[in-house]
Amino acid sequence: MSKQKKKDKKEAAAEVKAEIKRLRARLSAQQQEIRAKGLPIIVLVEGWAAAGKGSLINELISEIDPRFYNVISPVITPEAEARYPFLYPYAKAIPENGKIMFYDSGWMEDCVRKFLRREITKEEYKKRVRAVNEFERQLRDGGYLLLKLFVDIDCGEQRKRMRALRDNYETAWRVTEEDLWQQREYPLFRDAYESFMDKTGELIPWHVLDGSKRSAAALHALLLLTGQADAALEEGRYVGKPFQEDFPLLEMPKLSSVDLSPCLTDEEYKEQLKKLQKRLGELHNVIYRKKIPVILCYEGWDAAGKGGNIRRVARPLDPRGFDVMPIASPEPHELARQYLWRFWTRLPRSGHVCIFDRTWYGRVMVERLEGFCSEDDWKRAYNEINEFERQLTDWGAVVLKFWIHIDQDTQLARFNDRQNTPEKQWKLTEEDWRNREKWPQYEEAIDEMLQKTSTENAPWFIIESNDKKYARIKTLKIVVDALEKAVEAQL
Amino acid sequence: MSKQKKKDKKEAAAEVKAEIKRLRARLSAQQQEIRAKGLPIIVLVEGWAAAGKGSLINELISEIDPRFYNVISPVITPEAEARYPFLYPYAKAIPENGKIMFYDSGWMEDCVRKFLRREITKEEYKKRVRAVNEFERQLRDGGYLLLKLFVDIDCGEQRKRMRALRDNYETAWRVTEEDLWQQREYPLFRDAYESFMDKTGELIPWHVLDGSKRSAAALHALLLLTGQADAALEEGRYVGKPFQEDFPLLEMPKLSSVDLSPCLTDEEYKEQLKKLQKRLGELHNVIYRKKIPVILCYEGWDAAGKGGNIRRVARPLDPRGFDVMPIASPEPHELARQYLWRFWTRLPRSGHVCIFDRTWYGRVMVERLEGFCSEDDWKRAYNEINEFERQLTDWGAVVLKFWIHIDQDTQLARFNDRQNTPEKQWKLTEEDWRNREKWPQYEEAIDEMLQKTSTENAPWFIIESNDKKYARIKTLKIVVDALEKAVEAQL
Repeated sequence: MSKQKKKDKKEAAAEVKAEIKRLRARLSAQQQEIRAKGLPIIVLVEGWAAAGKGSLINELISEIDPRFYNVISPVITPEAEARYPFLYPYAKAIPENGKIMFYDSGWMEDCVRKFLRREITKEEYKKRVRAVNEFERQLRDGGYLLLKLFVDIDCGEQRKRMRALRDNYETAWRVTEEDLWQQREYPLFRDAYESFMDKTGELIPWHVLDGSKRSAAALHALLLLTGQADAALEEGRYVGKPFQEDFPLLEMPKLSSVDLSPCLTDEEYKEQLKKLQKRLGELHNVIYRKKIPVILCYEGWDAAGKGGNIRRVARPLDPRGFDVMPIASPEPHELARQYLWRFWTRLPRSGHVCIFDRTWYGRVMVERLEGFCSEDDWKRAYNEINEFERQLTDWGAVVLKFWIHIDQDTQLARFNDRQNTPEKQWKLTEEDWRNREKWPQYEEAIDEMLQKTSTENAPWFIIESNDKKYARIKTLKIVVDALEKAVEAQL
Repeated sequence: MSKQKKKDKKEAAAEVKAEIKRLRARLSAQQQEIRAKGLPIIVLVEGWAAAGKGSLINELISEIDPRFYNVISPVITPEAEARYPFLYPYAKAIPENGKIMFYDSGWMEDCVRKFLRREITKEEYKKRVRAVNEFERQLRDGGYLLLKLFVDIDCGEQRKRMRALRDNYETAWRVTEEDLWQQREYPLFRDAYESFMDKTGELIPWHVLDGSKRSAAALHALLLLTGQADAALEEGRYVGKPFQEDFPLLEMPKLSSVDLSPCLTDEEYKEQLKKLQKRLGELHNVIYRKKIPVILCYEGWDAAGKGGNIRRVARPLDPRGFDVMPIASPEPHELARQYLWRFWTRLPRSGHVCIFDRTWYGRVMVERLEGFCSEDDWKRAYNEINEFERQLTDWGAVVLKFWIHIDQDTQLARFNDRQNTPEKQWKLTEEDWRNREKWPQYEEAIDEMLQKTSTENAPWFIIESNDKKYARIKTLKIVVDALEKAVEAQL
């Protein structure tokens, strides 16, 4: 190299260094605003083995206050892999408002690697790509800034780096069998990465960084991050618009047309209860062994009899294999994240039964009516929830949703009974009376919910509960039937 | 059997059944009071394989509202076993106030089985027994009602039950290799269980239930649970008294006697920073491979320079292997549990570094001074924290605690600087000024804390931080030294 060229190169390197320093300071300054405005940021760093994902993240964070970011490496544990939906570790890790989360590889590596290893079929792969697109859109629409980076190096560069790592005793352990396999099958991986980026780059674009030069890649990433953060801070928190997706919906009756007269005699009730509970207990055993996850969702009018109904379903279940999740108003740390986060984190392991006592449908009922979210938010939620539930059933879950239904007179009678019976008084609150006054608005919201979210894979069932005995038996029958089918489908 | 005897037996069975029904109703009625008074209850169900622990729990819960209890089966996953302290899964699962948690086998089975399998040494076993006693006492002193049950069956009964289970296709999978081993080694297990109960029964007694008759065991358990719940509800929430344990304490100077003049020139700082960070980066690699957990605790005066200090230590660490945990005021779901719970749940996996930016020492500083806990609570905390930290170091963790120290003049100068520099103003709050007014009270509390909790296994270091550069270098040196030692000790 001529002297002049050497000099030019040195100057260029110094310039890159100075620019990196400047951008780091800018990011550090942005921190306060990101925090003050509650902007949550996800930086997904994917790329080749040995491309320098870890060092890139290190460059990005070096001036940020450690209280404002986290790094997670979703090294998928076999446990998490086998027993939760594939997006679970990523959904669980989303940052709260005002914080940055760096994913040191994530859902892309997960999908691509499993597909190439033939651990998932082409069909499953397609479903996962769809789920990724839904997940990313939901985050964006929930106000998250999502930056997707792919750190690229070519086959020769990767070979060189892996050799260097393996030649050094201190670093040799970093090169895994999996990495060596990737090096051998470089072209195969390249096609798979490109195809994945093609299929998931439309809504939130991928940025390919040239990993062959560490500082250039860092500079590029810093430019993207600070630039996008500035834009997001300027425009204010993004709120996604509602949209209509093509879900195969089941026809549902209006609540007002439901005949609430069905009832059972004590004898009928006792006999059927015993039979159904016995069968449910047996099925739970099979479900557990076959590792089928079961999610039962309860919604219903106050005093409709949700608690007693849940108890009858829970009774025959092995307590080691089920949980009841009572859903109250979100806590501060839950409000600080996308609204489905608190349900993602409560999902059962496969083989377990989870009974949600109230659910994510709060979004389109109480949150809608009390103004706890914007109109765009709840209108968008119908589709988001359909997507979420499809991700659950794609995972293999049985998802059943019950609307425990009574009429206004029955509710009033039960409220009065609660008021007049000392040991039941705790069940009745001022809020129940206030909600009762809004019956017509709730009925409208519930009708809309039932119309828009009863899908073949996750259907709604209206449970006539003026007679609680009838309601319990009907629910048990539906659960038993669905589990019989799920078990048969796996035979 | 004679007719009369048969009749007597039948009558007795009916009586037991009626009594169970009565007690279940009583438990169901107690629910409201348990909830209203915020009493948290732990029911630990240990016992022989096939003794009927699951069905016993089922009998206990059948009339409780599912929103008020949970069952966990800490089937220790290999992950949890290997990478967290052994009490971690149990500590993580403690119920919130007003709820009941049933442990379907727990720390007893864990300790005994590992010891018999020779996965832990006698020495380790002893430490675990000590930790169990500490853990149980801390829960009791924190207001938890802890009921410990052991479901007993004899060797012949166990053999009979296992045969019956294995003879049935539907249930054969329930009998594991481990269970068969227990059956073969029944006397060995019996001795081990008895010895464990001997060593852990003094403070909170064990109750041995006769598992040979399901209903008798259920009745016994229900009597114990409802009786103890009644007593606890009557007496009100228990608050443990302070006590003095014999911890080998390091001598610590009073804060007022600390010389805050040490400082470094820019050149000294830069040179040493580079050298120490390089070494720390190398060590992090080794730590990661050797799976040594590292816990760094930062406490210090407002504006003492904690954030910048933490950043310098974090800088050379691989972001995949460390986390900074900023500790703010507890959230409602954290306040609803024993105060160490939010730290248990934030522990790093082994091989990871966790930097706590503020810690559990809030108990004996801000919570003490602001009256957020009772005098007994914070006075007890010195020992409880020493125990907690010993459990961490017994697990193999490196635990280092830094008090970042400045004098009042320096704090005032930094407050003023923050107030006058727009991009720093966010760092200064009204609360900082209020805390400053309480400097003497805080100094007294901090002196007491340093005296009472600087142990050999988890020492405090006072970091002179009037000169931040000096403080950072001193901290880095301490961390590097400690990690060198930890690595050497494992060679």
